[in-house]
Amino acid sequence: MIIIKLGGSVITNKEKPHSPRKNSIDKIVRVLKKLDEPFVIVHGGGSFGHYWSVKYNMHTKPANYNSHGVSVVKNSMIELNKIVLDSFLKNKLNPYCLPPTDFVFGNKPITKKVKEIEKMAESNLIPITFGDALWFGKNKSYILSGDRIMSMLANILKPKLCVFVLNVDGLYSDPKTKKLISELKGEKPLILKSSKDVTGGMKRKVEEAMKISKKGMNVFFVNGNKPERIIDAVKRKKFHGTLFKGK
Amino acid sequence: MIIIKLGGSVITNKEKPHSPRKNSIDKIVRVLKKLDEPFVIVHGGGSFGHYWSVKYNMHTKPANYNSHGVSVVKNSMIELNKIVLDSFLKNKLNPYCLPPTDFVFGNKPITKKVKEIEKMAESNLIPITFGDALWFGKNKSYILSGDRIMSMLANILKPKLCVFVLNVDGLYSDPKTKKLISELKGEKPLILKSSKDVTGGMKRKVEEAMKISKKGMNVFFVNGNKPERIIDAVKRKKFHGTLFKGK
Repeated sequence: MIIIKLGGSVITNKEKPHSPRKNSIDKIVRVLKKLDEPFVIVHGGGSFGHYWSVKYNMHTKPANYNSHGVSVVKNSMIELNKIVLDSFLKNKLNPYCLPPTDFVFGNKPITKKVKEIEKMAESNLIPITFGDALWFGKNKSYILSGDRIMSMLANILKPKLCVFVLNVDGLYSDPKTKKLISELKGEKPLILKSSKDVTGGMKRKVEEAMKISKKGMNVFFVNGNKPERIIDAVKRKKFHGTLFKGK
Repeated sequence: MIIIKLGGSVITNKEKPHSPRKNSIDKIVRVLKKLDEPFVIVHGGGSFGHYWSVKYNMHTKPANYNSHGVSVVKNSMIELNKIVLDSFLKNKLNPYCLPPTDFVFGNKPITKKVKEIEKMAESNLIPITFGDALWFGKNKSYILSGDRIMSMLANILKPKLCVFVLNVDGLYSDPKTKKLISELKGEKPLILKSSKDVTGGMKRKVEEAMKISKKGMNVFFVNGNKPERIIDAVKRKKFHGTLFKGK
């Protein structure tokens, strides 16, 4: 089984609120159709949910956030998710929408529910989930990022590969020269040592990727504008991107 | 707390696939805004999910139904649900979408998840769920009707009132003369004695209503084209429709 995260910066235009990149989504979905093993999709919020969570000052820490904000973030995610689902359906695949409310209670995964996601993927359905505004309990809510969902699912499902589909080729050792790091074997990349995350969520992705690879699974960062690289990785073990080797 | 089911025949035009009745939805939502106690919304599938479940021959009994059918029913429900959510948001309410995947495992409710729905309703959110195509496990799926969700939620949450919003005034003792039954105190109405359900799902609604009222809760059938009757019932205990008295 493979878990694939479609980054918000690939499936939306982050510069403009509520602007999906439908062609990019379609292109990725057409390529995913070639995968001949079960997979699960997680997607980010980009100029939908991420945009609104910033507007309403909502974070990953549970707190008493504005209810209207929760509602707006949630609805914007449903809107983006619908676009992703429609692309899968249009390409004659069988998406099945599972907002994280399905498999999360408070901010912890429900193991037996997560395990059913794998069963669904092994039947003829493609489970699709996404980063979201969630109810925590005790009048609190929080943002659960798609990146965090990746490590949640990976911990329980132990996929053969976790793929983060990005808007860049992978992790750069130097953002100026765009020198790509092609493989990491547990060593901490520079980005985790710098205090500021200037690369739009890359630091958080790297943190989740490190967590997953430390548990023995391979994590692959790949450019979503070249989706055939996902197929090369899965079918031919050719990783044109950044591979975090599972230890 | 109150649980309100918006019937598929009120929020869609059942004669034509994928045709929402947006004005009816808006009208109901504007009236629900006047409720000054927590409520939860359940809605049906009408010319969206219900239409497709018939097309793909899917039923409430778990079975190995066509995966594409599951996907199509699910997606059509997301489409209809989005229209309902948008109406709530437009009216400055705070809907929070909870597909039944949230609180169901197999075909049983998850009590601790259902209890959180009440907590959400007591905070400033309006939980909105709907009849849906669900994964059962063991390669099986099934249709969970909105009517069934009503008794599931009522059993655990013990609401003060369950409202079924219909496209007719209530339950008729005689469908020809349209003589309304205004109150039932546990006696079986004629419709449950006849073998055929010619009134488009009314029999199933009455069955769920009887189950709920037998557990001591009041159930009210009301015409969604006259939504102010919901307010009359809740605020002034005037029931213009059919009241199933809780025993």
